[in-house]
Amino acid sequence: MQGTYRALWLDDNKNLVVLDQRVLPFEEKEVVLTTAEESIEAIKNMTVRGAGVIGNVAAFGVYLACRQTNGTMETLAQLAEEIRESRPTAVNLMWAVDRMMNCAMASKLQGEELTKLLLAEAIKISDEDCERSEKIAEYGADIIEEIMLSRGLESFNVLTHCNAGWLAIVDKGTALAPIYEAKKRGINIHVWVDETRPRNQGANLTAWELLQAGIEHTVIADNTGGHLMQNHQVDMVITGADRVARNGDSANKIGTYLKALAAKDNNIPFYIALPASTFDFETLNGVEDIPIEIRSERELKFMRGLDKEGNIQEFQIIQSESTALNYGFDVTPARLITGLLTERGLCEANTQAITAMFKDLI
Amino acid sequence: MQGTYRALWLDDNKNLVVLDQRVLPFEEKEVVLTTAEESIEAIKNMTVRGAGVIGNVAAFGVYLACRQTNGTMETLAQLAEEIRESRPTAVNLMWAVDRMMNCAMASKLQGEELTKLLLAEAIKISDEDCERSEKIAEYGADIIEEIMLSRGLESFNVLTHCNAGWLAIVDKGTALAPIYEAKKRGINIHVWVDETRPRNQGANLTAWELLQAGIEHTVIADNTGGHLMQNHQVDMVITGADRVARNGDSANKIGTYLKALAAKDNNIPFYIALPASTFDFETLNGVEDIPIEIRSERELKFMRGLDKEGNIQEFQIIQSESTALNYGFDVTPARLITGLLTERGLCEANTQAITAMFKDLI
Repeated sequence: MQGTYRALWLDDNKNLVVLDQRVLPFEEKEVVLTTAEESIEAIKNMTVRGAGVIGNVAAFGVYLACRQTNGTMETLAQLAEEIRESRPTAVNLMWAVDRMMNCAMASKLQGEELTKLLLAEAIKISDEDCERSEKIAEYGADIIEEIMLSRGLESFNVLTHCNAGWLAIVDKGTALAPIYEAKKRGINIHVWVDETRPRNQGANLTAWELLQAGIEHTVIADNTGGHLMQNHQVDMVITGADRVARNGDSANKIGTYLKALAAKDNNIPFYIALPASTFDFETLNGVEDIPIEIRSERELKFMRGLDKEGNIQEFQIIQSESTALNYGFDVTPARLITGLLTERGLCEANTQAITAMFKDLI
Repeated sequence: MQGTYRALWLDDNKNLVVLDQRVLPFEEKEVVLTTAEESIEAIKNMTVRGAGVIGNVAAFGVYLACRQTNGTMETLAQLAEEIRESRPTAVNLMWAVDRMMNCAMASKLQGEELTKLLLAEAIKISDEDCERSEKIAEYGADIIEEIMLSRGLESFNVLTHCNAGWLAIVDKGTALAPIYEAKKRGINIHVWVDETRPRNQGANLTAWELLQAGIEHTVIADNTGGHLMQNHQVDMVITGADRVARNGDSANKIGTYLKALAAKDNNIPFYIALPASTFDFETLNGVEDIPIEIRSERELKFMRGLDKEGNIQEFQIIQSESTALNYGFDVTPARLITGLLTERGLCEANTQAITAMFKDLI
């Protein structure tokens, strides 16, 4: 496992180490995962989040399950199923677990041999993610250069929602990958970072990532993007995705749909960046059929921040007597999406184009 | 001064008392304003907010200015100008100050006589606001009943952004007025309350108001409205406004434009409720010409909430090293607005209709 920045790595005892994304940007804390149960818990309690990283933790989770059960196939299958169900919307998670289990079953191995094989397979999944990010970075930066050239721009403003950087997708990410690449190419780039309520992944994670990479950025309330687009302060919107249906409808962090509407209304290109593993080819119509996770109202009612003494604390920000409802995702209809930016290049967001580009995977 | 709920009232010494809206819903604190300077400060630091209440505090501020200078016209004019400039977007503020000063100048009075006159005029402005709210409530509830009838609904879901209730508009408010009236008429009504970052007026004020009135409501992240509308969980969107141009373009709390886009995309009626004093007939094109206030980035980076001990504290939620940009408002283009709900009834959001309905005021 290599790469500039990684959201997870192995320690000397071959345990999985992840960054606790719940305490960023105020604290950098590592969490060691030694069992399938700990992996599930890390996914459920959002120590880790982001489609790619969830997929990776799930893959390593299957390896850890094998290690703890010493390769007993029946228990392994049961734990794998539990990992598979730890988050309902993330298709990468299911994809990664299925690939690991297919690998296990095809091998006919048992015990330590199987554990070794699954470790190698999980590392392979992670490395492949990195290669995909690299490709998305290249294709995306090419698009940025094309837009700048055609419009005669000397600098470039991107708006992004949530976090689809290396904290989400292991190395470079998806939506942020072209931004990192553009910076590398010497482009004068600035990023509008949606705060991304209720969990503030934009303010907490994307802003932190960009700061580390020395990329100019400005945090804004989720409410602000429409005004910026209306006033010609955004040249492109790019986000990641949690699940993209066969017709191009894309499930991503709640609020993405509103930004896509504003981009359309102001004639601004709106891209979804994703590895092919994020496609759910079985789901033909995303708006109608992608299930949307409802998360705890507590995520809305309480927020983490620094108190006056500089300690991370949880604060209550909504009165207890009010109900709160916390949908985790929404689905952006394909008609609002300029293109899907994948490791195979730019794909139009419709059934025909997706089927043509990814027919070997369907 | 009368009314069920009021955001301001006079004490026995004829000072102005306001509710400190910065500590709601966790604390109910009254603030006594005795001078023009204190009134300006209360407007600037957002002890009071909302177009109507700002207008009222400005009107009483002119009375307080007169009292403190004992009716010296020159100093009064100077203080009135300072009040006028305390918030750039609120047209009610300018309207109220102008009306007070016109009253003062027309009277030719001085000293205590002038102070008495201005007190009476400020009370009149406030009472007139209440009457307008009552009318908006009636017309709005009629529309709700019509929609329910035509669609055969047994219950009704309204989405609102920010706070345009009695905390904003003295009594009943504008956007919330039809909701209060619908409840009074026995309609089974439920309100989706946008949190309204960065100052959380929805979560802090609207939810608190609705709770007091026993109206069923659910607080949501600002990101959520699009998903709810796409999934048929919203029957109407209604918000207030800070300034409405002659062509119907409406400036309101940042994020309103995004909700209007989602309403349009899902064929849901989107109303702006406002008293006629919120029109800025001089501004012909709102999107192009309404100036948008940029407020301190501190409002975005820090948030008030309850700590574990139940004390109200301010805590930091965005890392210091990142820049944040805080536009206070955005402008919703008239083409997205189903209608303007005023004390004279429903008005189409276009120059011709507005000019016809309000020609006596232009």
